[in-house]
Amino acid sequence: MGKRIARSIVEFNRPPVIIGQGAVGGKIEGEGPLAGKFSEIFLDERLGQPTWEQAETALQAAAILHAITAASCTAEEIDLHIGGDLMNQCTATGFALRDENIPFAGVYAACASFALGLALGASLVDGGALSQVSCCGSSHFCSAEKQFRYPLELGVQPTPTAQRTATAAGAVVLSHESNTPQPRITRAIFGNVIDMGVTDPSEMGAAMAPAAWDTLRRFLQGTNTQPSDYDLILTGDLSQIGTQLLHELARQQAGLDLALLHRDCGLMLYDIIAQDVGTGGSGLGCSAAVLCAEILPRMRSGELKRVLFIGTGALLSAISPLQGESIPAVAHGVLIEM
Amino acid sequence: MGKRIARSIVEFNRPPVIIGQGAVGGKIEGEGPLAGKFSEIFLDERLGQPTWEQAETALQAAAILHAITAASCTAEEIDLHIGGDLMNQCTATGFALRDENIPFAGVYAACASFALGLALGASLVDGGALSQVSCCGSSHFCSAEKQFRYPLELGVQPTPTAQRTATAAGAVVLSHESNTPQPRITRAIFGNVIDMGVTDPSEMGAAMAPAAWDTLRRFLQGTNTQPSDYDLILTGDLSQIGTQLLHELARQQAGLDLALLHRDCGLMLYDIIAQDVGTGGSGLGCSAAVLCAEILPRMRSGELKRVLFIGTGALLSAISPLQGESIPAVAHGVLIEM
Repeated sequence: MGKRIARSIVEFNRPPVIIGQGAVGGKIEGEGPLAGKFSEIFLDERLGQPTWEQAETALQAAAILHAITAASCTAEEIDLHIGGDLMNQCTATGFALRDENIPFAGVYAACASFALGLALGASLVDGGALSQVSCCGSSHFCSAEKQFRYPLELGVQPTPTAQRTATAAGAVVLSHESNTPQPRITRAIFGNVIDMGVTDPSEMGAAMAPAAWDTLRRFLQGTNTQPSDYDLILTGDLSQIGTQLLHELARQQAGLDLALLHRDCGLMLYDIIAQDVGTGGSGLGCSAAVLCAEILPRMRSGELKRVLFIGTGALLSAISPLQGESIPAVAHGVLIEM
Repeated sequence: MGKRIARSIVEFNRPPVIIGQGAVGGKIEGEGPLAGKFSEIFLDERLGQPTWEQAETALQAAAILHAITAASCTAEEIDLHIGGDLMNQCTATGFALRDENIPFAGVYAACASFALGLALGASLVDGGALSQVSCCGSSHFCSAEKQFRYPLELGVQPTPTAQRTATAAGAVVLSHESNTPQPRITRAIFGNVIDMGVTDPSEMGAAMAPAAWDTLRRFLQGTNTQPSDYDLILTGDLSQIGTQLLHELARQQAGLDLALLHRDCGLMLYDIIAQDVGTGGSGLGCSAAVLCAEILPRMRSGELKRVLFIGTGALLSAISPLQGESIPAVAHGVLIEM
């Protein structure tokens, strides 16, 4: 069973195994640096659905199906699905699960929801409460723009600091056992809500970087490790500005140089210069898809052995900035080892 | 550590203890059958805040503070807070946690979120992953009406089947140990998403009753128990119509008579005739507050020994019915024993 090694940091004694994963994306996600690495790319970003919200539901259902297929199990063998999305009342997830016969726990930590799902799922499997848990996270550029920003038809120019919400979803199946070598979740950390007073919703990277740093700092302290103990520290999704701020915070507050060891999913999903996506990718599906399409396969091939994955989320709504609120953020993390 | 006794049903070996709880409400909640049982009643339903959303944040922060005080612990002694609400992007919870130094996991299962939080929190504490976990759920009549239905100023007449969203919040602190006798969470069940095709958002009880029955049926089968093994089967919140439907489903599908053993939080919070609240209460805060204000104290006094608490949630958004979607529902449960 899990062992608490510091406040809100768990070390798993029988680390849950990632026995399968799936990653799906839209057209421009399929044209970026991860081209060819997705389980499926949807050139029709409506996925045959009448609305963008229903398209995101279909996107998420596809990712779950790919993960379950890759895990060589059936929906009936999964005890619980933990998932989330950015839609109001997490409808992309709830509706995707309507047609699956899998008990369902919704989570919300904005773009950190996939990392939160992995942390909770691993805790449940390691603790013996459940045998197999699936986790999924999704976002859709069009449903997010419609809900959080402006109607697409208006053609509003994004600000220079804006990130592009990924049309993507990633899913995994966690199990208490596997006969073959697979990536395992060995530790998890739950993050604090950090609000440094950023009020501009197009400055998400700046709002989230302090939360990423708080979680990384606490994890390194709590586990008595250094960045160099990991092959990769992976955040999602700070993109250009948030990445610079995270590196500055690490340097100023702890004398750490993260430049070589840290990468951000928002800068891995797209070629930000060639693809005209602002300062990089964002959205819950970005880190979920990058982890599942790129990182887990590189772990399976032996190229990466210890990856500290920290998801970052901005806990605002479409109306909270209009009510004068600043943007709180949270970052949850899991250590994945091969 | 927890033991999986059937699909998505956990039995705890060192059942987590509820070491403290808090319940807060608005004016009409304080005038109902639970008058005098709340930790605090706010006659000013704005709680001194400029907006309804911020009022709900203040309501939730108050419930958390009462629970922590009742548990005789400090925020620093809590490893994780698990909470949720009905606001878009769960902002009532996220903003409430901004000023607390407690790591935070957001959950979303609509009005089943508090039950989901208890199920997840108990699994984490029992599994040894964490020492102490707080859980909270809230809703606010005015923020919910504004977001899901019509502007209050419009004075729209509710339909005869409508329930009233409670202005209320409930919170507990779970711990791995206690020196005194306290209610303990001994089992948990995670529910399936059930959609029987109800499309009218003012028919929430009808949409949720099949999910309540599915979870109750699976729990009784998985634990090999009968309704009469419990002092109380408590749902939240089916209210009048959903309660009738649940009783009918139990009678038709399993020959069970729930009339004497079952009560619904939506019918306990208000005097539905004298208080003019439609078919009863609803909203995430309704079941959270009834459990914390009424049920847990009756367990502590020895009046109730085994309570099966099943939270029910309708997984719609304000726009999903307008897109032709029916209303999926989910029900999560915990068994609390004294």
